Amino acid sequence: MARPAKWCGAEALQPVMADDAPDARAVSRYFKEMQARLCRQLEQFEPEARFGEDAWRHAHGGGMTRVIERGAVFERGGVNFSRVSGSALPPAATAKRTHLAGKPFQASGVSLVMHPRNPYVPCCHMNMRFFLAGAPGEEAVWWFGGGYDLTPCYAFDEDCIHWHQTAKRACDRFGPGHYARFKAWCDRYFHLKHRGETRGIGGLFFDDYREGGFARAFAFVREVGESFIDAYAPIVRRRCAMRYTERERLFQFYRRGRYVEFNLVLDRGTLFGLQSGGRTESILMSMPPVAHWKYDWRAEPGSDEARLVEHYLKPRDWLSAAKL
Amino acid sequence: MARPAKWCGAEALQPVMADDAPDARAVSRYFKEMQARLCRQLEQFEPEARFGEDAWRHAHGGGMTRVIERGAVFERGGVNFSRVSGSALPPAATAKRTHLAGKPFQASGVSLVMHPRNPYVPCCHMNMRFFLAGAPGEEAVWWFGGGYDLTPCYAFDEDCIHWHQTAKRACDRFGPGHYARFKAWCDRYFHLKHRGETRGIGGLFFDDYREGGFARAFAFVREVGESFIDAYAPIVRRRCAMRYTERERLFQFYRRGRYVEFNLVLDRGTLFGLQSGGRTESILMSMPPVAHWKYDWRAEPGSDEARLVEHYLKPRDWLSAAKL
Repeated sequence: MARPAKWCGAEALQPVMADDAPDARAVSRYFKEMQARLCRQLEQFEPEARFGEDAWRHAHGGGMTRVIERGAVFERGGVNFSRVSGSALPPAATAKRTHLAGKPFQASGVSLVMHPRNPYVPCCHMNMRFFLAGAPGEEAVWWFGGGYDLTPCYAFDEDCIHWHQTAKRACDRFGPGHYARFKAWCDRYFHLKHRGETRGIGGLFFDDYREGGFARAFAFVREVGESFIDAYAPIVRRRCAMRYTERERLFQFYRRGRYVEFNLVLDRGTLFGLQSGGRTESILMSMPPVAHWKYDWRAEPGSDEARLVEHYLKPRDWLSAAKL
Repeated sequence: MARPAKWCGAEALQPVMADDAPDARAVSRYFKEMQARLCRQLEQFEPEARFGEDAWRHAHGGGMTRVIERGAVFERGGVNFSRVSGSALPPAATAKRTHLAGKPFQASGVSLVMHPRNPYVPCCHMNMRFFLAGAPGEEAVWWFGGGYDLTPCYAFDEDCIHWHQTAKRACDRFGPGHYARFKAWCDRYFHLKHRGETRGIGGLFFDDYREGGFARAFAFVREVGESFIDAYAPIVRRRCAMRYTERERLFQFYRRGRYVEFNLVLDRGTLFGLQSGGRTESILMSMPPVAHWKYDWRAEPGSDEARLVEHYLKPRDWLSAAKL
C-alpha cells in the first residue's frame, strides 16, 4: 500500500517520493514529450505547413504553445503544453471540490484542438491534465483528468465507430467499466444545453482520476493519450481528399460557431485558464479560424446538414451499432 | 413619499399600484415601443434590408426578436424585446444581490446590437432592463439597468467625443454625478481582463438604479434610451461611405472575435439569458456574422490597427479631451 505523499520544506509543492507517491515532474515531462510526438504525427498530413514553437513564461508558470495555421489539411490548430502553479486553486477547479477551495496547487497539461479545412474532416480535441493541491505540511491531493472528443460537420457512422472502438480498446486494460463510464461522462460534459445538442459525437472524458494509485492512474492516462492518434489519423486520411463546395464550407463556418459557444460559455478548461490569469493566446488557440452566426438558421429537411443534428449530435451507443 | 409596492393574490407578480409604485406593465410597453422606433430609425440607413419580426413564446415568457441581415450598412444586427418571469432569479442576477437569491421575479428589457459592414462604422450596443423581484406578500424589490457602448475597429476622436457628449446630456438632468459614475461603470464593465483591453470606447452602464423613486428612475431610463439614436446615427452617417479594402475588413473580422469573447465569457445579460433558459437565438443575435481568430496576431507598429488598442481601448476622459 502506498504511503501518502508528504510535502517537504524546500520545494513546497513537490511531495517527497514514496513508493507510489505522485510524481508531478514525471507527468509534466511526459506531457511535453506527448506534445512533440503529436505535432510530428499531425505534420505528416501537411506538405508544407509546420507547427510553430512558442515558449512562454508567465506570472505563475510557463509552457510551450505550438500552433499551425493555413495548412493544406489543418486550417488552424494547436497543441499546448503548460505547467502552472498558484497559491489558490481558481473557482473553476474547485466548484465541485469545495474542500480544496483556496489551496495552493500545481498543474500541468497538454491539450490539442485541430480545425481542419475540409468540412468532411472532423474537428478534434484531446486534453490530459494533472493536478496536485494542498498546503505544505498537509497531505497532497492529486488527480488526473482528460479525454478526447470528435466534432464532425458531416459525419459518417464508420468514423464514429472507429473513434469509439479505439477509445474503448485504450480503456479496457484498466477496468471493464472504464469506457462506458468515461464515454457517458463525455456525452454529459460536451453538451450545449442552450442548443439541446452535444458538441460532437463524444469520446472519453474523465476527471478526479486516481484509481489504483498514482503509477496505475498515470499508466491509464498514457494509454489514452497514445490511442488518440490511432483514433484520429485514419479518419483524417479517409476524408481529407473529399470534394466539397461552398455549401459545405459555409455549413462548417456555421457549425464552428457552436464550437466557440461551447468553449467560451461552458468549457471548464478554458474558464480555469482565463480565471487563473493564464496566457490568453495559448488558451484561445482552441478557437476556430473563422466562425459564422446566422439568425435562427435551419437545415433543409432531409439534408446532410439536418442529419448531423438529428442523427449524430445526441448520445449514441456507437459500439452496439457496430455489432448490427 | 411613495408607499411600498405590495403583491396581490390574483397576479402574484404584479404589484398593486401606489403613488410611485413600480409599474412593470408600463415599462414593458415602453420597451416594446422603443424597439419599434429603433428599428424604424435604423432602417432609414438601408435601401432594401428590413428588420424581420419574430414573435416568440417560451417556458417563462415571450418576446419579439427583430434581426436584420445582409444589409447594405448593417451586415447583421438585432433589436430584441423580451418579458420573462420565473420562480427563482438565476445566479447571474443574484451574484451581487445575494439577498434576492431564489426569489420569484419578472423582468423585461430591450437590447440592441448592430454589426455594420463597413469597418469604419463602429459596432454599437444598447440595453435597458427592468426587474421586479420578491415573493407574494413581501415587499417588492425593483431596479432598472442599462446603458450603451460603442465598439469601433477604426476609431475617430470626434466620434468618441460626440458619443460621450450625447450620453452626458441625457444624464445631466438627473444628477450632476450621473454621467461620471455611469461612464466609469461602463469602462469597468466592458473590460476584457484576459486581453487587458476595454471592449470599445465605452459610454454608459448602470444597474440597481432606483434613484428618486420609480417615476423618476423610469424617466431617466427613457431619457437615456431616447438619446441613443442621437449618439449613434450621426456616426453611421459620417462613416458609412468611407472606402475600405480587404485589410480593414480582415481587421474587423479579427476584432469581432473580441466581441464574441466578451459576450460569451463576461456579459451578464448573455449569461442571465442562457442560464434562465432564455431563447438562445434571441440572446445570441448579439454575435457578429463573421469572426476570425489568429494566433498571437499583432498590429504593425504605428498603424491604425495598433492605434485602436493603444489610443482607444482604455478608459479615457473624452469630454476633457474635447475642451483642449
